[in-house]
Amino acid sequence: MLATLIYGERDIRLEEVPDPVILEKTDAIVRVVAACVCGSDLWPYRGVVTREGAHRIGHEFVGIVESVGDDISKIKVGDFVIAPFYFCDMTCTNCLNGVSTSCLHGGWWGANDRAGEFVDGGQGQLVRVPLADGTLVATPGQPDPGLIPSLLTLADVMGTGHHAAVSGGVTHGSTVAVVGDGAVGLCAVLAAKRLGASRVVAMSRHADRQAIAWEFGATDVVDERGEAGIKVIREMFDGIGPDVVLECVGTAESMDQAIKSVRAGGKVGYVGVPNGGSELPIRTLFNRNVSVGGGVAPVRNYIHELLPEVLDHRINPGRVFDLVLPLEEVAEAYAAMDERRATKVLLRP
Amino acid sequence: MLATLIYGERDIRLEEVPDPVILEKTDAIVRVVAACVCGSDLWPYRGVVTREGAHRIGHEFVGIVESVGDDISKIKVGDFVIAPFYFCDMTCTNCLNGVSTSCLHGGWWGANDRAGEFVDGGQGQLVRVPLADGTLVATPGQPDPGLIPSLLTLADVMGTGHHAAVSGGVTHGSTVAVVGDGAVGLCAVLAAKRLGASRVVAMSRHADRQAIAWEFGATDVVDERGEAGIKVIREMFDGIGPDVVLECVGTAESMDQAIKSVRAGGKVGYVGVPNGGSELPIRTLFNRNVSVGGGVAPVRNYIHELLPEVLDHRINPGRVFDLVLPLEEVAEAYAAMDERRATKVLLRP
Repeated sequence: MLATLIYGERDIRLEEVPDPVILEKTDAIVRVVAACVCGSDLWPYRGVVTREGAHRIGHEFVGIVESVGDDISKIKVGDFVIAPFYFCDMTCTNCLNGVSTSCLHGGWWGANDRAGEFVDGGQGQLVRVPLADGTLVATPGQPDPGLIPSLLTLADVMGTGHHAAVSGGVTHGSTVAVVGDGAVGLCAVLAAKRLGASRVVAMSRHADRQAIAWEFGATDVVDERGEAGIKVIREMFDGIGPDVVLECVGTAESMDQAIKSVRAGGKVGYVGVPNGGSELPIRTLFNRNVSVGGGVAPVRNYIHELLPEVLDHRINPGRVFDLVLPLEEVAEAYAAMDERRATKVLLRP
Repeated sequence: MLATLIYGERDIRLEEVPDPVILEKTDAIVRVVAACVCGSDLWPYRGVVTREGAHRIGHEFVGIVESVGDDISKIKVGDFVIAPFYFCDMTCTNCLNGVSTSCLHGGWWGANDRAGEFVDGGQGQLVRVPLADGTLVATPGQPDPGLIPSLLTLADVMGTGHHAAVSGGVTHGSTVAVVGDGAVGLCAVLAAKRLGASRVVAMSRHADRQAIAWEFGATDVVDERGEAGIKVIREMFDGIGPDVVLECVGTAESMDQAIKSVRAGGKVGYVGVPNGGSELPIRTLFNRNVSVGGGVAPVRNYIHELLPEVLDHRINPGRVFDLVLPLEEVAEAYAAMDERRATKVLLRP
């Protein structure tokens, strides 16, 4: 089959690799219908994080189940399934506590599972899915093709934006600002609105992303950033800042902006993978009673809440995809996102 | 009048100072009935934090109103009042948001107010209280003298322990561990129990403090600390740790212990004034979805919730005082706490 490998900075290649096979009785093989490039894939692409040698990449996909191991009882051959950006059993204490990203038996696409066997990334034609009864969520019947982009966002960005909002304690009447206008930040706007926020400020200086933010329910758009952005945001909310700031980037600058924008006693919900950032300034947080919550989003736990709204067209997070390319053009997909020519690229194998 | 000054490391003196007078129409003068030494007073006492020259110290007191400014309408001469460890108007946006420690017009005992006028500390005979209608809470009638220690804890330690529990999201059925067996840590045990925690582990290696923890509702006491303490706590809760850890010390070691003890997806509620500590390790928090909330406790906002339970003898946080001394022996009060001969010392002017 064909799969995507990263060889180094800005060096993405589609190559022939062996087809995956069932190794464990709890595995399934899924034929990928749609995959995509994540903002976090840009960290290795840009050389911000490095790893020795070429390796498989990708972690967001939806597809059709081709075969299942003997112990699989929930997922059936032919099901259309959503895979979160990791695999998990959904039966361990952490999964039951709502933190399936900390599954005691789970792991990550494009790396080895706990038995030491390789697990494919999602930017390819086929994936061996460990713990498939826990990991995968089947849709009721085959979905309308038009829904596939939104279903794909449940693998990562919509669930991650939702996690930012949940971690920030967004509730009915909350005032919210969102730092970051990538797909996750835009989904955080949608998530905050969906949870009842009375005012949601999207921070963005790109017209195309601003347009999506408005569609997703932003009540205000601010294009200042850094110190100027902090000042504008605080002034918009009685000079003290909004109840919640959602940090959806992962840099030291974006976290600093979030912490300084939120009101005293407010919450920062963060989901940006911390890269090259400084640690959290405890004394600043302490003096203003600013809490910080979030992390690697347990999107598997959120699919059951969000899926019905996607199926009913109540939310349309797939709107974040503004470019669709065949898998053969995966290198161009990375380049388009890196150069901000696209917000998020959907890949069709 | 007599008031306490700190001249430097382990140099506490009681000296004659001018009586305070009403300076603003919103002031009141309070004659101190009981004051105490705070764990945070030990930081300057031990030289961990330093400040140039001699200065007044103390920030927890209850007393009787002696006189009031022309604009005071709620507090009356003769009222028995509780003062939080700071002053605040209780009318600004931050106070109304529940964060009176960030009052837009407030300040701190033993320092200058926003008009540049000095405000007395609490370890003396009289205090000028700015914004007295907001700052002070009067009890209904004169309280039973036996209640005074518990009323005094509402000025700081009980409200602070409560803030740790609230910030950690303790609710019915939560599992909780408390790092720190000072007065605040013990009050955090009481607060967690009061909020419905199903299991509360006190971490303490001092028999006298363990005894108070049991009285306050601890279900377990653990005397290991550091790495050994983390291991024991995690093992007590399915090998993954409790839902919530309350950090009530303020050192880098205690915060590290809290973060590593709590389960994935759990919360650290912290109220220990950060001193000499490192910053919060964002990547560790991110990977395990551990949130951190808390800060300088807005105890004024909590008095109305906690006071009725003190008056009804449902809670007895005054139990943390295990030594009562006349104000003349304030230096000995500091020494007794510094040398851990006392958990918390009550001073009678």
